[in-house]
Amino acid sequence: MIIDCHGHYTTSPRQHEAWRTEQIAAHGDGRAAPPRPAIGDDEIRASIVNGQLKLQQERGTDLTIFSPRAAGMGHHLGDATTSEAWAAACNELIYRVCTLFPRNFIGVCMLPQTAGVSPRNCIAELERCVLQYGFVGCNLNPDPSGGFWKDPPLGDRYWYPLYEKMVELDVPAMIHVSAACNPAFHTTGSHYLNGDTAGFMQCLTSDLFKNFPTLKFIIPHGGGAVPYHWGRFRGIAQDMKLPPLTELLLKNVFFDTCVYHLAGQELLTKVIPVENILFASEMIGAVRGIDPETGHHYDDTKRYIEQLPLAAADKAKLYEGNAHRVYGRLSSQLAKQFSGA
Amino acid sequence: MIIDCHGHYTTSPRQHEAWRTEQIAAHGDGRAAPPRPAIGDDEIRASIVNGQLKLQQERGTDLTIFSPRAAGMGHHLGDATTSEAWAAACNELIYRVCTLFPRNFIGVCMLPQTAGVSPRNCIAELERCVLQYGFVGCNLNPDPSGGFWKDPPLGDRYWYPLYEKMVELDVPAMIHVSAACNPAFHTTGSHYLNGDTAGFMQCLTSDLFKNFPTLKFIIPHGGGAVPYHWGRFRGIAQDMKLPPLTELLLKNVFFDTCVYHLAGQELLTKVIPVENILFASEMIGAVRGIDPETGHHYDDTKRYIEQLPLAAADKAKLYEGNAHRVYGRLSSQLAKQFSGA
Repeated sequence: MIIDCHGHYTTSPRQHEAWRTEQIAAHGDGRAAPPRPAIGDDEIRASIVNGQLKLQQERGTDLTIFSPRAAGMGHHLGDATTSEAWAAACNELIYRVCTLFPRNFIGVCMLPQTAGVSPRNCIAELERCVLQYGFVGCNLNPDPSGGFWKDPPLGDRYWYPLYEKMVELDVPAMIHVSAACNPAFHTTGSHYLNGDTAGFMQCLTSDLFKNFPTLKFIIPHGGGAVPYHWGRFRGIAQDMKLPPLTELLLKNVFFDTCVYHLAGQELLTKVIPVENILFASEMIGAVRGIDPETGHHYDDTKRYIEQLPLAAADKAKLYEGNAHRVYGRLSSQLAKQFSGA
Repeated sequence: MIIDCHGHYTTSPRQHEAWRTEQIAAHGDGRAAPPRPAIGDDEIRASIVNGQLKLQQERGTDLTIFSPRAAGMGHHLGDATTSEAWAAACNELIYRVCTLFPRNFIGVCMLPQTAGVSPRNCIAELERCVLQYGFVGCNLNPDPSGGFWKDPPLGDRYWYPLYEKMVELDVPAMIHVSAACNPAFHTTGSHYLNGDTAGFMQCLTSDLFKNFPTLKFIIPHGGGAVPYHWGRFRGIAQDMKLPPLTELLLKNVFFDTCVYHLAGQELLTKVIPVENILFASEMIGAVRGIDPETGHHYDDTKRYIEQLPLAAADKAKLYEGNAHRVYGRLSSQLAKQFSGA
């Protein structure tokens, strides 16, 4: 089985995102948000059959760990109330996708984060998504301010209440920023990658995994700049008299394979232990075109991995085994969804 | 000749940085700064002979393009007046190093930037450093706020007066942030790399090089996350209907080789045309230890390059030729410094 651990519902029915625009406008005007729009099962089906499911089939992958559109989370917009209602709406849609296509999608939730508001606020929604919807993880935004980096770093105790709940529920977080509202950053070109690199470094300089030895983070987009600068990070840790990165972080930190060219994938798998790499494409995402150099979609990451000199056993870890290890609830949830329970 | 295009004076005499502390304290108290300390030629000599020069000789490089300590620029501290005085002091020290060791160092200046203050303010110091001191470039901080990213992106007309002067003087800028005062970032671990990636993306999304076809930027630290995600950047540009990156940027944007492990250097030279890569180490900088995997300093970047399958002609470009092309005043300044003129 080939599990893509990083997919967002970027093709959701139009009225869903339209409602978000209305919600934020209403909030700005001090009005109540309009009621949420009706979205039929057929609309959801069409958006998936012609989108993610079609590409799964064309590319030969089996299952996508699926979450709301990352740039759409918009934790810098509105306030705690709007974030809560929006997260609920987005997560519910993911649940409906997983219910309609139980063999192809398994859910991960977005959190109702708001810049400057305690992550305690996210606990109820996380619990609801995991226990009621059968979700297996969450996306955690290290910068709810959208590019101004106003919240404490991930190693700060500010975030601990959420980590406690994650550990209790046995769910990992993908460290994933949302849209940048700071003109210094391009959302998918610099802000995403910078969020990955900053998040990794926040872990490196903290006691986080000493205090939460079973907490697990996935750093998406191939780990931002981290594997390319693995020597730099090893050296900085060494200068700080910290243990080697393998000991310090690699029981808790994992990288996905959202790197859109072969040379990058080669580097990733050469530098990072295969146990710490999870297959992913973030397809129908940041880069949608076809690479004229290969004739294939940039984000068809499986094609790169097929070209790597990996042993079959290692490939199996990267495609499937590691996902089961990192997402502690994945195996049992899959069994449920496959049996139609 | 092997030219290291990225060195900072990290070993400057103690009273120099001590004065900075006093200057900023005085500014905070509304007092005038104390007079600048006396620094003898012998002190400068000792700091270089036992530092950069020793490593040049040990590692077999010839010349360092040398600028003030990057993390020390501190454009978020004080105001325009303190920045001006501090830049003048730092640049003067670099000039003295170049005068004492004319065959080993050639100067690049820091700019008296201040968050929220027009880059016009930097023109006089740039002109002074180039015309009086014989400097061949400048370091340009895309985020004088130190991690809060409050200034306009590099493509904005806000920066144009400075670019006009750079073009007139024929000097490039290395896009280099300073220390992070935002707790979200570790200065050398995430802020530097994020500054590189953000700066590159700001160029990609702007008309900058259409308006300044001879303007040249060096993106340090191997280009941040850029070469590792070259496919992503190519794809994003393509989705935006922009020309290929080679056309769009690579006449104007160059990457240095400050990547501290072999796999990263392999990727850099595989992905980026050799014409766009400049040898650099940033030695006695972010990473000072010895890599137990190689037994050599992480930042001894020449050792990695010696292991790459590059043709001799390409290696010569990377080590020397490209530097002469990017730093338009380098050849004539070198001739001056070598002849003792």
